[in-house]
Amino acid sequence: MMELKTECRHAAGVDIGGTNTVWGIVDACGNIVAQDSMKTRDFLQADVYADTLAERLGKMIDETVGRSNICGIGVGAPNANFYTGTIEQAPNLPWKGCVPLADMLKQRLGLPVAMTNDANAAALGEMRYGVARGMRDFIMITLGTGVGSGIVINGQMVYGHDGFAGELGHVIVERNGRLCGCGRRGCLETYCSATGIVRTAHEFLTESDEPSLLRRKPVDEITSKDIFDAAEEGDALAHRIFDYTGTILGRALADFIVFSSPEAIVLFGGLAKAGHYIMDPVRRAMDENTMSVFKGKTKLLLSELKDSDAAVLGAAALGWESTIRNQIF
Amino acid sequence: MMELKTECRHAAGVDIGGTNTVWGIVDACGNIVAQDSMKTRDFLQADVYADTLAERLGKMIDETVGRSNICGIGVGAPNANFYTGTIEQAPNLPWKGCVPLADMLKQRLGLPVAMTNDANAAALGEMRYGVARGMRDFIMITLGTGVGSGIVINGQMVYGHDGFAGELGHVIVERNGRLCGCGRRGCLETYCSATGIVRTAHEFLTESDEPSLLRRKPVDEITSKDIFDAAEEGDALAHRIFDYTGTILGRALADFIVFSSPEAIVLFGGLAKAGHYIMDPVRRAMDENTMSVFKGKTKLLLSELKDSDAAVLGAAALGWESTIRNQIF
Repeated sequence: MMELKTECRHAAGVDIGGTNTVWGIVDACGNIVAQDSMKTRDFLQADVYADTLAERLGKMIDETVGRSNICGIGVGAPNANFYTGTIEQAPNLPWKGCVPLADMLKQRLGLPVAMTNDANAAALGEMRYGVARGMRDFIMITLGTGVGSGIVINGQMVYGHDGFAGELGHVIVERNGRLCGCGRRGCLETYCSATGIVRTAHEFLTESDEPSLLRRKPVDEITSKDIFDAAEEGDALAHRIFDYTGTILGRALADFIVFSSPEAIVLFGGLAKAGHYIMDPVRRAMDENTMSVFKGKTKLLLSELKDSDAAVLGAAALGWESTIRNQIF
Repeated sequence: MMELKTECRHAAGVDIGGTNTVWGIVDACGNIVAQDSMKTRDFLQADVYADTLAERLGKMIDETVGRSNICGIGVGAPNANFYTGTIEQAPNLPWKGCVPLADMLKQRLGLPVAMTNDANAAALGEMRYGVARGMRDFIMITLGTGVGSGIVINGQMVYGHDGFAGELGHVIVERNGRLCGCGRRGCLETYCSATGIVRTAHEFLTESDEPSLLRRKPVDEITSKDIFDAAEEGDALAHRIFDYTGTILGRALADFIVFSSPEAIVLFGGLAKAGHYIMDPVRRAMDENTMSVFKGKTKLLLSELKDSDAAVLGAAALGWESTIRNQIF
């Protein structure tokens, strides 16, 4: 265990995505003091990646606030295990097997490092800097290429007994439904992610001849943005695609409520930005399907964090949290 | 806040059911030192009920271990709110509205009183005295007339922001399925409780003319015990009823795993005692439907507590827990 620096005023956050790695220094109020990035895919070897990241992040720390003012480094990464500080079998990262990245960075930087998956980091960011400030019980749902989640109960992140809890994108919403990347069928994320809504568009367009602005493009080239644009232009089919998607999500949220009875469910990510097209059906389906004892109690909120900042803020929040809790690898 | 008695060696547990109220004195090892009961339905007024219960429980305490050796009183009751210590709109109890029973007992007995619903109390009992000893993450599922649940995460009971979390009997397993007592359709408990399996028997018997030992009785008189007995005699339809029930439960458990990734799921109650008839399909469906990252990690266990003791042990465990945490009303 490293010595705790309770007087420190900053944390570092690193967000590792399949394409880019972004890092920054964040103060206690959520201001990003410095930020930089590099291409994750340029590094086929994990130790070369760790060398480069540690060198550049270390230099940034030295040139801004100094190492003695950093309480810890939080890392958000796909398939990251909080307990072990390892990235395990991440399909979208260049390194195979189990990479002990938290230890690798800690050795290179001499600072405490904690790691969790990106959706958990997003939840921590929202709790420290965003719309979930002061909440002890909430669920964060990230609607991106997939559907991620971070669950906070009694003011603590839920990691589960193995470090991988909170995979709400993989509850089954349709028995024998759409094939999921996880190998099973009917997972929430096959319907309510950016790729899920595009699959819905494919289905709706091929099942009927109904005229739609979405037919301007070959069906295989349609994106979630196209569906939003068509909805904005008043396209009835696009509206029905959002209704279908939002209804499935709202029903799933009603089921999540019986589990942990959260004060709020916070939505984040591209699909959440489709505004009332998605939020109206989500809210309706959630209200209609919530058990009476919980009805009207759980707020449905949109993230307050800017897209460009959210990943670094979330990871930095983990840097603070983990130091406070001595849960540093 | 009352003074904490850290030297005490006993807790009292009260289990309030629609028919009977049972109470007892429990030592730190889970031995029930004394136990008694009365009919809940004999008391149409909550204050007369509280007077009688306090008088009889107080007398039992005085005649056994003495009040100074009781750390606290835990009460398990339907629709009980841990945070407020109230029983709210319990359909199966004689008192309507919101009854502040924890305060009523505390005033009459001069001892700390905490209250939660019976399934949460069962989970606390299992964690302190049963098969979940030493576990920090597990889910208790009680398969009785209904389906109840108690969720433990990071070693703490999950009460949610309003005190009512953990209603896993009311996740929707079949959209537009069977009508539930909660007013919605397709809840887990309409399939996997003692009443749910009887509904399945009705359906299976009326949908075909297949010969079955279950036809010895009028269909409206069949009980879950009859289905078990028929299965024991080798009845194919009875076996299919258990398969159907266990498959639905196992699929639901697989969904619960993605939420909190528990070390174990503990089953308790009448249906769990149907042995391999129910456990084989539950285990198979759970394994088949668990996401690969969680596969083989969560144990499926049967409660170790005796039926006759479990309710009082669970309530007493709340008595210990709450005193330790100063969460006393």
